[in-house]
Amino acid sequence: MAGSTYGNIFKITTWGESHGKALGVVIDGCPAGLKLQEADIQRYLDRRKPGTSTVTTSRKEADAVEILSGVFEGRTTGTPISMMVRNTSQISRDYSEIASYYRPGHADYTFDEKYGFRDYRGGGRSSGRETIGRVAAGAVACRILEQLGVTVCAYTRSIGPVEVDMEKFDREAVLRTATAMPDEEADRRAVEYMEETRHATDSSGGCMECRVEGLPAGIGDPVFEKLDANLAKAVMSIGAVKAVEIGDGCLVSKRRGSENNDAFRMENGKVRKATNHAGGILGGISDGDMLVVRAYVKPTASIFLTQHTVNQSGEEIDINIKGRHDPVIVPRAVVVMECMTALTVLDAMLLNMSARMESIVKFYRPE
Amino acid sequence: MAGSTYGNIFKITTWGESHGKALGVVIDGCPAGLKLQEADIQRYLDRRKPGTSTVTTSRKEADAVEILSGVFEGRTTGTPISMMVRNTSQISRDYSEIASYYRPGHADYTFDEKYGFRDYRGGGRSSGRETIGRVAAGAVACRILEQLGVTVCAYTRSIGPVEVDMEKFDREAVLRTATAMPDEEADRRAVEYMEETRHATDSSGGCMECRVEGLPAGIGDPVFEKLDANLAKAVMSIGAVKAVEIGDGCLVSKRRGSENNDAFRMENGKVRKATNHAGGILGGISDGDMLVVRAYVKPTASIFLTQHTVNQSGEEIDINIKGRHDPVIVPRAVVVMECMTALTVLDAMLLNMSARMESIVKFYRPE
Amino acid sequence: MAGSTYGNIFKITTWGESHGKALGVVIDGCPAGLKLQEADIQRYLDRRKPGTSTVTTSRKEADAVEILSGVFEGRTTGTPISMMVRNTSQISRDYSEIASYYRPGHADYTFDEKYGFRDYRGGGRSSGRETIGRVAAGAVACRILEQLGVTVCAYTRSIGPVEVDMEKFDREAVLRTATAMPDEEADRRAVEYMEETRHATDSSGGCMECRVEGLPAGIGDPVFEKLDANLAKAVMSIGAVKAVEIGDGCLVSKRRGSENNDAFRMENGKVRKATNHAGGILGGISDGDMLVVRAYVKPTASIFLTQHTVNQSGEEIDINIKGRHDPVIVPRAVVVMECMTALTVLDAMLLNMSARMESIVKFYRPE
Amino acid sequence: MAGSTYGNIFKITTWGESHGKALGVVIDGCPAGLKLQEADIQRYLDRRKPGTSTVTTSRKEADAVEILSGVFEGRTTGTPISMMVRNTSQISRDYSEIASYYRPGHADYTFDEKYGFRDYRGGGRSSGRETIGRVAAGAVACRILEQLGVTVCAYTRSIGPVEVDMEKFDREAVLRTATAMPDEEADRRAVEYMEETRHATDSSGGCMECRVEGLPAGIGDPVFEKLDANLAKAVMSIGAVKAVEIGDGCLVSKRRGSENNDAFRMENGKVRKATNHAGGILGGISDGDMLVVRAYVKPTASIFLTQHTVNQSGEEIDINIKGRHDPVIVPRAVVVMECMTALTVLDAMLLNMSARMESIVKFYRPE
Repeated sequence: MAGSTYGNIFKITTWGESHGKALGVVIDGCPAGLKLQEADIQRYLDRRKPGTSTVTTSRKEADAVEILSGVFEGRTTGTPISMMVRNTSQISRDYSEIASYYRPGHADYTFDEKYGFRDYRGGGRSSGRETIGRVAAGAVACRILEQLGVTVCAYTRSIGPVEVDMEKFDREAVLRTATAMPDEEADRRAVEYMEETRHATDSSGGCMECRVEGLPAGIGDPVFEKLDANLAKAVMSIGAVKAVEIGDGCLVSKRRGSENNDAFRMENGKVRKATNHAGGILGGISDGDMLVVRAYVKPTASIFLTQHTVNQSGEEIDINIKGRHDPVIVPRAVVVMECMTALTVLDAMLLNMSARMESIVKFYRPE
Repeated sequence: MAGSTYGNIFKITTWGESHGKALGVVIDGCPAGLKLQEADIQRYLDRRKPGTSTVTTSRKEADAVEILSGVFEGRTTGTPISMMVRNTSQISRDYSEIASYYRPGHADYTFDEKYGFRDYRGGGRSSGRETIGRVAAGAVACRILEQLGVTVCAYTRSIGPVEVDMEKFDREAVLRTATAMPDEEADRRAVEYMEETRHATDSSGGCMECRVEGLPAGIGDPVFEKLDANLAKAVMSIGAVKAVEIGDGCLVSKRRGSENNDAFRMENGKVRKATNHAGGILGGISDGDMLVVRAYVKPTASIFLTQHTVNQSGEEIDINIKGRHDPVIVPRAVVVMECMTALTVLDAMLLNMSARMESIVKFYRPE
Repeated sequence: MAGSTYGNIFKITTWGESHGKALGVVIDGCPAGLKLQEADIQRYLDRRKPGTSTVTTSRKEADAVEILSGVFEGRTTGTPISMMVRNTSQISRDYSEIASYYRPGHADYTFDEKYGFRDYRGGGRSSGRETIGRVAAGAVACRILEQLGVTVCAYTRSIGPVEVDMEKFDREAVLRTATAMPDEEADRRAVEYMEETRHATDSSGGCMECRVEGLPAGIGDPVFEKLDANLAKAVMSIGAVKAVEIGDGCLVSKRRGSENNDAFRMENGKVRKATNHAGGILGGISDGDMLVVRAYVKPTASIFLTQHTVNQSGEEIDINIKGRHDPVIVPRAVVVMECMTALTVLDAMLLNMSARMESIVKFYRPE
Repeated sequence: MAGSTYGNIFKITTWGESHGKALGVVIDGCPAGLKLQEADIQRYLDRRKPGTSTVTTSRKEADAVEILSGVFEGRTTGTPISMMVRNTSQISRDYSEIASYYRPGHADYTFDEKYGFRDYRGGGRSSGRETIGRVAAGAVACRILEQLGVTVCAYTRSIGPVEVDMEKFDREAVLRTATAMPDEEADRRAVEYMEETRHATDSSGGCMECRVEGLPAGIGDPVFEKLDANLAKAVMSIGAVKAVEIGDGCLVSKRRGSENNDAFRMENGKVRKATNHAGGILGGISDGDMLVVRAYVKPTASIFLTQHTVNQSGEEIDINIKGRHDPVIVPRAVVVMECMTALTVLDAMLLNMSARMESIVKFYRPE
């Protein structure tokens, strides 16, 4: 099984376990000539670090990235970019007990069934730390997209019952609030809710959303490689996501066609849609409008309440999970969603360069 | 762009346009020795044919499949299985007008942006007829899964406001009812609703669900190739699907961990879950429980009400779409969802055979 | 196993057995807007047809191609191009005997070992007729390359002991001579040799060569996807090829570096090589010079002399193969080599469009 | 362009430049449960290290491997195995001059044409050090093959005019002789020849061969993924290889069918071939006999004689390359060929597990 590679042209391969020596990623297919330094990556990795706020775990994770190859004199060379984060603060004894039983909501049991045994320390490959490689690669994708005029922005849409008021959407707030919400008032209420959840030694689910702006029309494919199909896979591959919506998502199932169709109109000499129920994709191909993707995240499986489960000897037992865990993972997962979206959109754009005969002729015979 | 291929080991490539000469699929990687004849495929194709009921289009589509290769003396040979359906009843004049403008909710505009022009007859490659290849291949996948003890069953969950009562779930009803609902009473109300919709020259959305039973634990991958990620892609790649849920889906975002975690317990000497909020997948890998996937489908874009749009000369115009169209596509899309799910699950099972060293040694050195 | 697909961006999937209903290919990823009609394909297919000359089989194969999808109003649409050739003249009774034993030099035994049984009629999927799909797809690739200023030309280099005199190289002769040799005098001698071989009820091997001209420098990849590595695979995947050379090939092993290095020099303001021992590829990437690839082909395995072998019951027997077979396959395989080379070079060119950041920016932000 | 990944099920991605911080590989798809430690890898890496003999460079390369992930408690976990070798002894000043011009026989010019610039230190990604990742991954593949009863052994067949006498084949000698020849007498003559070559400040080509024993019949595919086609690619992707032969290779082109066909016979109740001109592959699929692959390697491009070339300003100049270089690379490339062969054969074996319906049913329903 070779499931740690993502993408076609801009292809990434991630590796590493929660409590192994290191985690990392190799990007193969990054175009040559992009200015890149470790600080560009670190900025994204820092967004998935646990903070000091009450909504994230109190674990310390330095997660300093090292670029090992593929960059020369400050620019990418076109050859693989290998990036690594050494594990420094993991304390293996925290996890020794869980080796023997299956934590509810975790992949302990399914790993054992698939591979015959598992690296039980901190979830091994199924840990949230697996996303370090995704974020490091996504940071590079975002940098390229920027130069193509495309911006990707993910944020928290809701935590438990607390929803963002989209009328108050404030992009700057995403990086500033503890919850990554684009609405400071909702952030305050969500923080309160999380404190209450933490007191109850329980956890909470939530919802995150991602917008892509500046994407030209014509990106994506009409059949299996629909842009929305690839976004669905990209986002659903983030641990704990249980649903993905494009545009108005589930709501469309209750609608009439006359309500749901987005009329076309002209705007400054360009074809535009009057509304965007479609979320920027028609028939699997971008329509020039804003992409809107939403992901629904389950509550953190590690809770401190007593739970019923089974151990490897096949005995039913009651367990109490210890350690330090996020009461909700959405605030830290937002940057992962941003990165998976960026990787997907960039790859589709690179693939799209050979869609038309005329573009190819122009590329190879420019005169 | 090469987006018409799906799968890794059991790999399919579909081809064909709504009004071209034919549509079809090539399956590469089908194991040798499977008993297969055209009738096995035709049975599935017939489920996506428009019927005589009021909930589907009145178009006639014979869609008789021909197996062109890969089957010898009634069994698959391990080489590519090519299957084809000739287009017979398409009347091109029905579609001549739409060449000049962009139908709202359709891929006309995005195709033009991507490829520079399009086959405008009946939606070309973006037509629902594109799914003929998926269904023919999916029928083979289902046949294989059957022999592995795995059954896949999709059905209509809701049409507009009419929802199935899952307490009354009747699997036999799916093939019998006009709406592919597993609840005859809901079917009746849905048919009424569709007649009303048709009278209003409008269309309706809906929801479909798919269950996989008998799937062993341990299938799927922990990172990008999570079983749920691949199911999300498979299902979102069906035209008109705007949201995908696994297990309890969107609902988990409002839950506490203590509500959402499925406790493990022993049942006849096997590890089982007490509940199935997870929908049969933990950490991207099947847990031995029933898989549950849901897809939300937008209302048919082709409605007969006057709509505002733009033509290729960049003028805003009002249009009235003619022709014969399904007022809701869910009843005919159900078999497509079943097939895409089967293809995804089968491919994951075949990939899984080399997950453990001991299985490989046993395969090659059985003594 | 899914081994009937070739290429990354310009991806082809072939299907069909010697004596099945039909053979064909699906091209997925052909750029939109290419002018294409059946006659463009037929011209290439006709080059692999057995002729009336003494050097090929006397079998009749009409092999008329039908384009089933992907072309609209005379141009490719960007969607899959499905092409099919119906089998018309196969006579199954010719092959009934070979069902029971393993022909030396053929794939009968290895197919049985892999798949458990085989379509024994005319070699099934292992027949030379399998190349129909390759040639149909290659014809399209050649047409695209032409518009990019790249020409691909394969020809017979030797048959048995008869070698072409490269001083007399005459490209026009390739399509004119019975042997596809670019030298009419060698052709005469080769025809004589083949008649003698046929009289001896034996067969002969040979060598074919392919040149690519007009290929810009910079195409190919430095590690696993070296242009020469992909050419080696492409050419070795043609049945009966047992060796592949690039440029001076085997000869380099006896040379000194001072003899083998090609000095660079300036020519009309361009960097060129003074010699071309390298065959147009340095470090896996094209250097702007002519590509030179050579393939060594074994003698036709089907000979009419008595041979010793084994039947499916495990008994040693003597056999006499009947039927109509080419005494040497090189003349008909030349067009297959041309097509496999074209497919490989085109795919590398399409992949290359995203090698540099500046090209991507120019593509998406041309102003 | 994403050309640093190789394999389908057992998939490797290499990274790193000659003078970067490190080089390495990620193996994705290694089966779980294989005993593995760094010493298993180091043993293979040591075989490609420059020695103290006169036939290799006098550069020191420690090349100590570190396993960073995918191994837990001494066994592989099924998740990606990341391995890294830090660069320690590179002296960048040795290479500063070559930044400005194109060395004949090297990839300097083609890299510049492809990517716009290059990491000029020691050949960057085109250095022989790129093979460190291949060898580390190949070591793991060899270990798995061993447990399946398959052994892979590569050796030097000739250096310049000095050929091994295959009558004297001594497998143990391969690891003992300075030239990796399986014949100590030939080794002595080859060492003499190399000393002479070194005195002449020139270099030499050579030939290497690889044998695979114990491979069951039925491995490989009949069309594009023929086992010989994949071996050709694997071996041609090693820098400096210009020709690949399977079995009797080029020789078959001069033969008659009656000479070249290998008769089948029975041996201890098994079907075997009386001769092995085919090199163990019929129709792209292994026939149970020994695989034989040969690779012809060009003389080291870096020679100390004055050479004519061009610089980046487009001026013709004479250059004298400095530094420490192997006078022939074959002795150090032998282990790379062994590893590429092992990776190819293993991947084909893993893919083969789903070739037959009966095997799949037996795997999932063993009772």
